[in-house]
Amino acid sequence: MPLPERLFFVDTTLREGEQFASARFTTAQRIAIAEMLDAFGVEYIEMTSPAASPQSARDLATIARRGLRARILTHIRCHMADARLAVEHGAQGANLLFATSEPLRTVSHGRSLSEILEEARQVITFLRDHDLEVRFSSEDSFRTDLADLIRIYRAVEEMGVQRIGLADTVGIATPRQVYDVVSAVRAEVKCDIEFHGHNDSGCAIANTFCAAEAGATHLDVTVLGIGERNGIASLSGMIARLASVDPARVQRYRLDLLPKIDETVATMLGIEIPFNQCITSPTAFHHKAGMHTKAVLADPRSYEVLDPNLFGRQRTIAVAHRLVGWHAVA
Amino acid sequence: MPLPERLFFVDTTLREGEQFASARFTTAQRIAIAEMLDAFGVEYIEMTSPAASPQSARDLATIARRGLRARILTHIRCHMADARLAVEHGAQGANLLFATSEPLRTVSHGRSLSEILEEARQVITFLRDHDLEVRFSSEDSFRTDLADLIRIYRAVEEMGVQRIGLADTVGIATPRQVYDVVSAVRAEVKCDIEFHGHNDSGCAIANTFCAAEAGATHLDVTVLGIGERNGIASLSGMIARLASVDPARVQRYRLDLLPKIDETVATMLGIEIPFNQCITSPTAFHHKAGMHTKAVLADPRSYEVLDPNLFGRQRTIAVAHRLVGWHAVA
Ligand SMILES: O=C(O)CCC(=O)C(=O)O
Ligand SMILES: O=C(O)CCC(=O)C(=O)O
Ligand SMILES: [Cu+2]
Ligand SMILES: [Cu+2]
Repeated sequence: MPLPERLFFVDTTLREGEQFASARFTTAQRIAIAEMLDAFGVEYIEMTSPAASPQSARDLATIARRGLRARILTHIRCHMADARLAVEHGAQGANLLFATSEPLRTVSHGRSLSEILEEARQVITFLRDHDLEVRFSSEDSFRTDLADLIRIYRAVEEMGVQRIGLADTVGIATPRQVYDVVSAVRAEVKCDIEFHGHNDSGCAIANTFCAAEAGATHLDVTVLGIGERNGIASLSGMIARLASVDPARVQRYRLDLLPKIDETVATMLGIEIPFNQCITSPTAFHHKAGMHTKAVLADPRSYEVLDPNLFGRQRTIAVAHRLVGWHAVA
Repeated sequence: MPLPERLFFVDTTLREGEQFASARFTTAQRIAIAEMLDAFGVEYIEMTSPAASPQSARDLATIARRGLRARILTHIRCHMADARLAVEHGAQGANLLFATSEPLRTVSHGRSLSEILEEARQVITFLRDHDLEVRFSSEDSFRTDLADLIRIYRAVEEMGVQRIGLADTVGIATPRQVYDVVSAVRAEVKCDIEFHGHNDSGCAIANTFCAAEAGATHLDVTVLGIGERNGIASLSGMIARLASVDPARVQRYRLDLLPKIDETVATMLGIEIPFNQCITSPTAFHHKAGMHTKAVLADPRSYEVLDPNLFGRQRTIAVAHRLVGWHAVA
């Protein structure tokens, strides 16, 4: 199945990313991050709920007023109080979240699906009346019964949401499972579909990609992949994944800004860019084994699926180390 | 499809990992790494070719003589000269590699498939005569024509290899493609199947897992996922992935040694354990968002797919930061 015609990034560095252990962004840093992401071309920027703290509320209003091309969303609970704050602080859209899996429902709200949907109707109607773009997401979708998921999504679609969201909150989903579940949901609703995938089992990027293959239109990412625990899909990872499959898909983004974006946020957090990061890792385009260096010198395509120059990077080639002897004897 | 009954790790930290930019292991470090991996319980340890350098040859002989439970493989070109060195230095198995994709064949050896197979027959026969376990892998399998792949694998199976290998050398394969290609190969050969996946598009762990779902029995990993460019599937990532799907699968390993293994190698390389690493990242079990911390205190299962105690780790919970206000208003 080809990727959907319309495909958007929802960058949630300023919400999910703020849940990363060492993230403690100042107002100035939040603005700097939003502006870099906007220059890059992400279509949506998700920000922490204005209900979280007075500073979150102020920063939402500040960034929403800034006239960026990216739409500014805020991530809120499905409560009227939060919805009012989202409207008051100028969010252009609201990403609603409700815990639907059995393990979360019990410890979190203890409510039935019918009760969830009753509350949702009020909140969605209010937000739509105020012209906000509304998404309704079911937390921990991959430990939620599929029949329940579909019942919820059909109900909220009828209430007028622009899109529904699937979240692999605990990072348990497998790539083919994501494909199957998103395909099943795709067959039941007409609205857009968002996917949010954690990396606890190392499959965040793959799962997000499989969601797109199954018809998800809105892909959650953060800079570097920061988030709760060991994070979610990274922006550079998803760019690498899409670029290697369908280069035309990523042409509308300012790809050359990626290294700067990753470096800036890594510096803010006091961490290194992980060596395993796609595209922006210091070693992402470093060729070392003798057989590889020889071939890459002859034709970079031999051992490179992405052209570093597209991303403002350059390949480096190890010229003398202990492994080089291999091609010397070739 | 359930995972194969028999599933093995081929740890290639001492071969693929040595192709990582900053890797320059001493003999003592190689021994330390092999012993840690053996204590953990990986079934195979792959080492750099004895043809690479005199030190690689000596270290192969040293580690092969050490009486580890893990079988010691060496990774060699499909040449008689390399095969003789493998035997002379006491390797218990040889992982043969031959470039089969069009982009690699042209820059690498320029030979036809028939010529490849003629050379392979001589090498495989020689190695089998010396009781080595033999694997034949086609480099860059996912840019190789599937019909060619199958022709090669059937031919080398007939020549007596114990297993064939698929390698996503440039990190281009997608999870569902890996599943499909490995399934197609699984249907054509009876021998074991190894998979080796690079991370250029962020899918190394997912692809390796999908290969296992399709019937691959031998999974290539390195400590931390180090390797050429941005690496391959990490041992801790594959453990997390398998443990979250089928906890019984990983019970035979000394899981509590994982943090120490990752730390030791990171220190040798002068890098941090990446925050996005499964299980061993400093933040892998850190819960920060208010909604999460509250729930995790009530029931860890709410936001944890793996029990940190199984891996000699402990969860940490952020008690006071700006996001905590959220559950205060819940
Ligand atoms: O709102 C969503 O879809 C995702 C929320 C979240 O961060 C999660 O469930 O992991
Ligand atoms: O021998 C193999 O299967 C893998 C060799 C390798 O490192 C690669 O192709 O990336
Ligand atoms: Cu999340
Ligand atoms: Cu490799």
